[in-house]
Amino acid sequence: MAMPMLIPENLMKKEGELINGFAPEVAWVTMGGNKQLEERMCVRPTSETLFSDYYSGVVKSYRDLPLKYNQWCSVMRWEKETRPFLRSREFWWQEGHTVHATAAEAEKETRDMLGVYEKFFREYLAIPAITGRKTEKEKFAGAEYTLTIEALMYNGVSLQSGTSHYFGQKFSKAYDIKFLNKDNDWEYAYQTSWGVSSRMIGALIMVHSDDDGLVLPPNIAPLQVRIIPIGDDEKIAKLAENYEKTLQKAGISAEIDTTDRSPGFKFAEAEVLGVPARIEIGMRDLEQGKITIARRDTKQKILVDANCDIEKEVRALLATIQNDMLARATARRDQMTYVAKTLAEFEKIMNTQPGFVHADWCGDPECETRIKEIRGTKSRCIDENAPLVCGKCVVCGRPAKHHVIWGIQY
Amino acid sequence: MAMPMLIPENLMKKEGELINGFAPEVAWVTMGGNKQLEERMCVRPTSETLFSDYYSGVVKSYRDLPLKYNQWCSVMRWEKETRPFLRSREFWWQEGHTVHATAAEAEKETRDMLGVYEKFFREYLAIPAITGRKTEKEKFAGAEYTLTIEALMYNGVSLQSGTSHYFGQKFSKAYDIKFLNKDNDWEYAYQTSWGVSSRMIGALIMVHSDDDGLVLPPNIAPLQVRIIPIGDDEKIAKLAENYEKTLQKAGISAEIDTTDRSPGFKFAEAEVLGVPARIEIGMRDLEQGKITIARRDTKQKILVDANCDIEKEVRALLATIQNDMLARATARRDQMTYVAKTLAEFEKIMNTQPGFVHADWCGDPECETRIKEIRGTKSRCIDENAPLVCGKCVVCGRPAKHHVIWGIQY
Repeated sequence: MAMPMLIPENLMKKEGELINGFAPEVAWVTMGGNKQLEERMCVRPTSETLFSDYYSGVVKSYRDLPLKYNQWCSVMRWEKETRPFLRSREFWWQEGHTVHATAAEAEKETRDMLGVYEKFFREYLAIPAITGRKTEKEKFAGAEYTLTIEALMYNGVSLQSGTSHYFGQKFSKAYDIKFLNKDNDWEYAYQTSWGVSSRMIGALIMVHSDDDGLVLPPNIAPLQVRIIPIGDDEKIAKLAENYEKTLQKAGISAEIDTTDRSPGFKFAEAEVLGVPARIEIGMRDLEQGKITIARRDTKQKILVDANCDIEKEVRALLATIQNDMLARATARRDQMTYVAKTLAEFEKIMNTQPGFVHADWCGDPECETRIKEIRGTKSRCIDENAPLVCGKCVVCGRPAKHHVIWGIQY
Repeated sequence: MAMPMLIPENLMKKEGELINGFAPEVAWVTMGGNKQLEERMCVRPTSETLFSDYYSGVVKSYRDLPLKYNQWCSVMRWEKETRPFLRSREFWWQEGHTVHATAAEAEKETRDMLGVYEKFFREYLAIPAITGRKTEKEKFAGAEYTLTIEALMYNGVSLQSGTSHYFGQKFSKAYDIKFLNKDNDWEYAYQTSWGVSSRMIGALIMVHSDDDGLVLPPNIAPLQVRIIPIGDDEKIAKLAENYEKTLQKAGISAEIDTTDRSPGFKFAEAEVLGVPARIEIGMRDLEQGKITIARRDTKQKILVDANCDIEKEVRALLATIQNDMLARATARRDQMTYVAKTLAEFEKIMNTQPGFVHADWCGDPECETRIKEIRGTKSRCIDENAPLVCGKCVVCGRPAKHHVIWGIQY
């Protein structure tokens, strides 16, 4: 689906919470050509209003439902402070929008998409995200509730990495999205939306990469193997071509570096680019019947028989790298995951080595605000599946309602 | 490549012709959140300024060249009059941008891309476009010259359908894009850009479609075959599934309509959507061992043996439809292509049945302006390969410099 980039102010205003949430951070178009516009328009910060306006025209009967759309686009939020890849005024994302005939179906969609994101992070990006529900303060403006996946960066800072919103009938009432249900009664429809963004690139950098450049998990690396022949020897060139052909045929993304730069330069460039595996073919190794495969993630160099089954060898190595990257990221996250029962414990953790802090909360927004005084710590999510830590709010000591995971955020 | 959506005014102003050409038709962002911006920014109408600014930072040596980028995005031009799919304020396109070390290489790129567009129109969209060079008046602001493909709609109105621009050193001088050439001298680089847009959807509608809906050429139809079982018979259902499986396996996009609506409704819907071929399986035909295949383009119905080689049958029919659509569009274009030697002839054509008019031109912009008085007719392009029609300017009678093709435009 392709929806317009500009949203007229009156359309944006129909759902009150949404405009209140976004008004301080949208860019306004006020002039077209040399003329002042009669009504200013904002560059979309998100597209619920546009989809809702569209649904109101096409949804008539339960037979029309569900409708599920996805849009790839960039959106704009006029952030005061920006950080490359993590928080930029313009960012690229996919935004999914769905409308359903029942609350149960819409809620299932909301949870299913959170699962898709969590799985994608784990299996492709090798990032172990935690999942849960946002507090009222942190949820999306206009949502009944927001589910979130949260990742932990190498330095213990949290990153909201993907969200899935259940809107119930909030938008359908504001935009008049009604349908005839199976009982032939008019009913307001149930909506969801969900998205992940180019912020994922920031997460990849801040979870896996090092001072020598990117470290990309094999499952999403655009180039998985770079083959570097050392010297001009014809035997070496032929072997490189054989490897390239064999690997490409097997569906592995592999490429010979044919430029005329030095081997050292080529090694360094492959490292900067985060290519997971590098095959180095040099005469000294080859005289022993060997080649070298270098791992980007651990920098380990492995001597392998030159006439090995290169497809099998590389495929196994890429799988190992993928698994190891997830395991290391998980171990680091776990090492930086804490439990706090008192505010003193909480403060000590965040002032030493921050990370995810599990702590109970009474549900009072004032206690949430109090925690923000600790280096800006916010609730990441309510862990709905976990029992309470100790039963007492970490701030006020009153009986706790929620097991919350907290963190300093980007 | 993904470049920003907003361009600061000062960056836009560096190349004088470009800003003069686009200033009357850009949308300006003047507020971010609740604050007036210190410098207003326009929503990109095109991205030459952004690519040029980028090149100026990365192009240092002839070894860095050529650089070739493509961006898929939407752009905005604040048109006074809009028409769905043909002229909208926001439209979606691909914009290619390249930078080269020599003029010859850049000029070749400009021509090559025009060839790609012409071929895509002919082989995929079944639209026979004419090609040529824009006059100075009609070329892209800031280009040395603009090449164009122009299509003729069913009603004789022309549509500029794709352009490829040669910039020479105009942008490189304005944005300081210099490189060390092979002689170790500093030289300004040579640039091109080229694009086609969602206007192609308008062209598809206005060239091929009819009062019953879209007519899509098989080579770009998202669904090529809809299979419609008539009635509940199990034998019919099985045959439909066999056809679907066979066609899908052969790489033909085919789908059974499994909804519970009437056959008449299903036929009409397939027509509205422009599905090139429809397989109707009904008991009456089947008792004779037959099925019916209906062509969307001619509405012809063809009786075929039910146990024929369905893949072969459908593949041949789709190829025939594709060829016939191009042949019909070409015949209509040729029928509406005229030659005019005098202004009187020119006016008579445009007031009777407009189309492409071949007529000589002296090169004087005033004569071009005079022709615009005839129902807004503009030069579509200079036909650089054709000899002059008669050697005299169709307006003033002075010696002609160019063989020009003219038309009324959308």
